[in-house]
Amino acid sequence: MAYILEKTDRDLFYSRNDPKDRRLGELVHRGKMLSVRDSDVVIIGVPEDRGILANKGRAGAAKGPDDVRRRLYKLTPGFNMDLDRIKVIDAGNVSTKGLTLEEVHLALQEAVADAVSRGGIPLVIGGGHDLTYPGLAGLVQGAGLKKDSLGLINVDAHLDVRTDENGINSGASFYRALSQLPDKALSGSAFVEFAIQEPYNSPYYYNWVKKQGGSVFTLKEVSERVMESFIQALSMVSKKGHIVAISLDIDAVRSTEAPGASASNPSGLKAPELDKIAYLAG
Amino acid sequence: MAYILEKTDRDLFYSRNDPKDRRLGELVHRGKMLSVRDSDVVIIGVPEDRGILANKGRAGAAKGPDDVRRRLYKLTPGFNMDLDRIKVIDAGNVSTKGLTLEEVHLALQEAVADAVSRGGIPLVIGGGHDLTYPGLAGLVQGAGLKKDSLGLINVDAHLDVRTDENGINSGASFYRALSQLPDKALSGSAFVEFAIQEPYNSPYYYNWVKKQGGSVFTLKEVSERVMESFIQALSMVSKKGHIVAISLDIDAVRSTEAPGASASNPSGLKAPELDKIAYLAG
Amino acid sequence: MAYILEKTDRDLFYSRNDPKDRRLGELVHRGKMLSVRDSDVVIIGVPEDRGILANKGRAGAAKGPDDVRRRLYKLTPGFNMDLDRIKVIDAGNVSTKGLTLEEVHLALQEAVADAVSRGGIPLVIGGGHDLTYPGLAGLVQGAGLKKDSLGLINVDAHLDVRTDENGINSGASFYRALSQLPDKALSGSAFVEFAIQEPYNSPYYYNWVKKQGGSVFTLKEVSERVMESFIQALSMVSKKGHIVAISLDIDAVRSTEAPGASASNPSGLKAPELDKIAYLAG
Repeated sequence: MAYILEKTDRDLFYSRNDPKDRRLGELVHRGKMLSVRDSDVVIIGVPEDRGILANKGRAGAAKGPDDVRRRLYKLTPGFNMDLDRIKVIDAGNVSTKGLTLEEVHLALQEAVADAVSRGGIPLVIGGGHDLTYPGLAGLVQGAGLKKDSLGLINVDAHLDVRTDENGINSGASFYRALSQLPDKALSGSAFVEFAIQEPYNSPYYYNWVKKQGGSVFTLKEVSERVMESFIQALSMVSKKGHIVAISLDIDAVRSTEAPGASASNPSGLKAPELDKIAYLAG
Repeated sequence: MAYILEKTDRDLFYSRNDPKDRRLGELVHRGKMLSVRDSDVVIIGVPEDRGILANKGRAGAAKGPDDVRRRLYKLTPGFNMDLDRIKVIDAGNVSTKGLTLEEVHLALQEAVADAVSRGGIPLVIGGGHDLTYPGLAGLVQGAGLKKDSLGLINVDAHLDVRTDENGINSGASFYRALSQLPDKALSGSAFVEFAIQEPYNSPYYYNWVKKQGGSVFTLKEVSERVMESFIQALSMVSKKGHIVAISLDIDAVRSTEAPGASASNPSGLKAPELDKIAYLAG
Repeated sequence: MAYILEKTDRDLFYSRNDPKDRRLGELVHRGKMLSVRDSDVVIIGVPEDRGILANKGRAGAAKGPDDVRRRLYKLTPGFNMDLDRIKVIDAGNVSTKGLTLEEVHLALQEAVADAVSRGGIPLVIGGGHDLTYPGLAGLVQGAGLKKDSLGLINVDAHLDVRTDENGINSGASFYRALSQLPDKALSGSAFVEFAIQEPYNSPYYYNWVKKQGGSVFTLKEVSERVMESFIQALSMVSKKGHIVAISLDIDAVRSTEAPGASASNPSGLKAPELDKIAYLAG
């Protein structure tokens, strides 16, 4: 299936007009997929949240890609990141006009496959968490991954391993990743669920993940040493020759504000930190 | 004094209608006090906040029991909690209709005593923090506790050891527990104030607690290692033959949002975690 | 230049009317600068935020001094602070009526110099963060500090070392402190930037601070052990004979609520804790 990318609104590319204080809005390139070269990071937005409604959730995430850009592009790259060396291209948003949710999934898969086949490192911004699956499928397709050659960490409050037997929904991405990816690219032993919050997940799905050979790091377990735990998770999924993908659900961060939820450390799971280690080849 | 329990609104018992993902709203039984058997956990709500107004606080906690249920019953039991083995009965709310605050206290005391005498493990949801005292008095009465046979931890931003010389108020529960419980069931040496925030408490009351032989763990002291500190507190109050009660003031958790207050770690004091260790026999 | 202090509104001095529970509103003296004696702490407010607007920020900090007092004066002094021994005088707010921002800066400098020359320990409450510079200049002037005799820690999300070539602004205080203080009282080696958040600061200004010999402790570096890190910073700036000043930007605390920002530990940077160690002679 073909896909259409709608260019990102110019106004989202923030600038202070100060050469001494350049922001990501000035450093990220508003470009076309055709311009992607080896090792470029490619930002792809997907303004789609129908999968969340299908999982009894609240709508709103369709605004996610542009809201994330609005905040992200106000930040600096930090002190040690050389954005003259690493090129970041914002390729726009996958068009959802007139498409079913299934068609949007296929369009995203194609867009990611295209980026990867050009040597790009895709950074997908949703949208519902159901979009993780087509993102992974596109990665497998574009990189031509074979059996057991993908590693995956899901940083999330939720396990998201419900079935999709009643259709696509935002709680099923990792069920699909473990059971439906082309060439069985992902095996359970290369999959880690990270910062899972027990009271939001049932023992049934927890046991299902374990049965597939996957690992579950609960928030309670990682909260004292988030970064060390994450590096441990990374080493578990980064086997020889593996491509590693990271999925970050904003739920994992939002827990800071949930009453009764572990507040402090999950906020250590900062998007920028994760971005840096996303898609590292093992 | 007799007491009346009003049954909990059926709508509060949340369900996803998914046998693979049962929530507490499905696992907790909407039952009668008469049905309580040995080792059942008994939830008793008290929609009463007049004691808070008497301590210059804000009203609203009268809605606490049902608000807590609304959130609590959406949660799962976690991964390792066997709710087929442990029966949890929601016995409803103590009726406050036409009663003075003093009469509500007596009604709660009787309800708790009744639950305990049937072998139940009461979990009281307030309401004002003044309700802790009648809850403890009911525990002492129902279990027939003698001198020095109760252990108590108050997880709270506040010491709550003001006198009740001008009447019941939400800042006096632990003054009352140390000086007025039947048979002097609680001695200071079996009492720990946990996660206390210095700027909200006066040196006078701090010194009063110490003078009774009680221990004060400030938030500053416990915030680096909340669970370890809590286990230490538990071992201090869990003497041979002691029944241990835990009081949790939502203040201890809310501090996460208070500007200038220690935000991060108190949120580690999660209600579900505390529930698990509440009322352990020493 | 002369300065005028407007007395603090009596209503801000909170009291519970309980001799067992005295609050800072009762313990802090509403007094005149003339009454300041050796070792008194002197609170000086500056209701001024024009410097924030000049740095593309939002107004509102002009209400800071009274808002801080409203909250601060409700607190107790904690359990170990002897406010019979340490006298705290609230000398009121620097009058800004009819003054330009430059004139307010000079007035604040004179007020601080006056407090210091009487032996007082000034605690300035802004207002914009540009006010830090005149506060430091007043300290240098009042204490007659010579070259390399001041130590300084800036607890802040931002480095605030922009130039003031286009006029006073809230992002330039530490550029000014390092380059414009009388007698070069502050050298880079006695300056620490503490709890700085990388994504809000450019590499250019980071490198500028390092080039001056200053130290930058990022939030990521200090968040695991805030107090230990702070004591380390303190030892770095507390050289023999040095007077140490602490600047606290509320940004460092507010980060708890910023999405994507390190939430947990900066909130450990509580104003009361910092107050206790502010202006220690090295």
